[in-house]
Amino acid sequence: MAASKCTRLSGALIRDLLDTVDSVLFDCDGVIWRGDQAVPGAPEVINLLKNNGKKVFFLTNNSTKTRKMYADKMALMGFNVTQDEVFGTAYCSAMYLKTVCKLGSKVYLIGSNALKQELEMVGIQQAGVGPDHISGAQSDWANVPLDPEVKAVVVGFDEHFSYMKLNRAMQYLSNPDCLFVGTNTDSRLPLEGGKAVPGTGCLLRAVETCAQRQAHTVGKPNRYMFDCVASQFGLESSRCMMVGDRLDTDILLGSNCGLKTLLTLTGVSTVADAKAHEKSGSPERQGMVPDYYVDSIADLLPFLRG
Amino acid sequence: MAASKCTRLSGALIRDLLDTVDSVLFDCDGVIWRGDQAVPGAPEVINLLKNNGKKVFFLTNNSTKTRKMYADKMALMGFNVTQDEVFGTAYCSAMYLKTVCKLGSKVYLIGSNALKQELEMVGIQQAGVGPDHISGAQSDWANVPLDPEVKAVVVGFDEHFSYMKLNRAMQYLSNPDCLFVGTNTDSRLPLEGGKAVPGTGCLLRAVETCAQRQAHTVGKPNRYMFDCVASQFGLESSRCMMVGDRLDTDILLGSNCGLKTLLTLTGVSTVADAKAHEKSGSPERQGMVPDYYVDSIADLLPFLRG
Repeated sequence: MAASKCTRLSGALIRDLLDTVDSVLFDCDGVIWRGDQAVPGAPEVINLLKNNGKKVFFLTNNSTKTRKMYADKMALMGFNVTQDEVFGTAYCSAMYLKTVCKLGSKVYLIGSNALKQELEMVGIQQAGVGPDHISGAQSDWANVPLDPEVKAVVVGFDEHFSYMKLNRAMQYLSNPDCLFVGTNTDSRLPLEGGKAVPGTGCLLRAVETCAQRQAHTVGKPNRYMFDCVASQFGLESSRCMMVGDRLDTDILLGSNCGLKTLLTLTGVSTVADAKAHEKSGSPERQGMVPDYYVDSIADLLPFLRG
Repeated sequence: MAASKCTRLSGALIRDLLDTVDSVLFDCDGVIWRGDQAVPGAPEVINLLKNNGKKVFFLTNNSTKTRKMYADKMALMGFNVTQDEVFGTAYCSAMYLKTVCKLGSKVYLIGSNALKQELEMVGIQQAGVGPDHISGAQSDWANVPLDPEVKAVVVGFDEHFSYMKLNRAMQYLSNPDCLFVGTNTDSRLPLEGGKAVPGTGCLLRAVETCAQRQAHTVGKPNRYMFDCVASQFGLESSRCMMVGDRLDTDILLGSNCGLKTLLTLTGVSTVADAKAHEKSGSPERQGMVPDYYVDSIADLLPFLRG
């Protein structure tokens, strides 16, 4: 249908596009909300898509909330959403360890309480959550007691990240059989007003550097996030659309999985960013060019109300 | 003199080589000591080199000791050394900021007390040393109070490294005029018995990832360490030899600066590592091939005693 890529989505094209998809997958921050505020019109878009018979899912690289926490937050904002429609990296990492890695033992976790809870929901015990300050001397650090049941290190967002946690992760990972999983590689967590704080990608790079190994990353643009939804709901990739505000995670995930892709301009990336990828001639960068873009997902409203 | 590279240094070749150099620059850990033990014979080698009229210097990427702390440690081990012969990255980073960057303002420091002291010795004030635990919420982190006098972020080894320190560094570095200096990029700090703990390189990668900028690194293999010694003592590079146990820092520094290079096998790298670089055909890896190697610097003893 798309003669060329990176086309502004408007008019009848919106209805034509929606007719070709059964499922719409949304990134959250910068797409349906910003911080604690819904993007104006976003709840109505989601609710009308569902009324129109579309399946709707939410895929976020943020690992600091459980599915239930997301569903509760969204309900407060007026979204008609259930927690089984929400796929955050806390939940998806737990599912990855359980169903792909078949992990039957414990995890050393650099991460949030939410990630701990999602792991426990699938029956995986963990150690590591909360503060872990330095003590002792270098020789003590190299000989920290290790839990022999730990067979995986998982790194997600952790505001208690510390040298001691980095060291414990390194000591576990010196066993080549220890799995190494990261929730996502986002270098920054964007906040309102153009501010940002360090993202999980920083913590993961630190651990990768001393472990001298690369983590398997669960989050976008890695295809596991889509595979996780698709396997649970029987989705057909050619009938799905990914909607996101970031070219390097959301749009690239869509391209990696053969989905239709829609960039919304309420978040991080711009049309100029997308055009630069398109014109680069670099084959790797073509996956970051969306099929379509809109100023806001509220642009879909007139065609959903009709 | 060296017909081919990576030659075992023995017999008369030792005296011939020593005749061509006025100054010998030694790495410390894995070369003249391991942990708290001198490499057997190393103190005598150093002391005899000096008795034979050679200048001797010590170049270490470790940023956790002042020059005085090193000189005191070495005196206890029997080395005849003064602190002005010791060039650690704590001292060299302070000199770099003072003499190359002409920094007239404050530093936000991720680093040790020793680094703080070396900065203060050259008149540079700092903030940041010691624990800095997380408090508040994300919006507080993005709005941490910044000291307007801070014009540089310096990252060295810091066992109190934390998410909050990472965040403060990122907020300072969001000002493009803020300098960004790392002491070294070593990913691990090797300890006795094959053990190791995370090195400064991990902390630096974490900061670089969220700052979306690369630090200027002072330590080996960057040539500033040699330039710092050479400018103070009027060294001529063609009359200097670098002795080290690591190909990627010590030997590469020597190659980068046009020094003769000697690998000693009492530390990290092996002859097989060096031969692999040599045979790779990769031009970048040739700098990591030493001119000569010895099992230990004690191999020089017979020719120094004579």
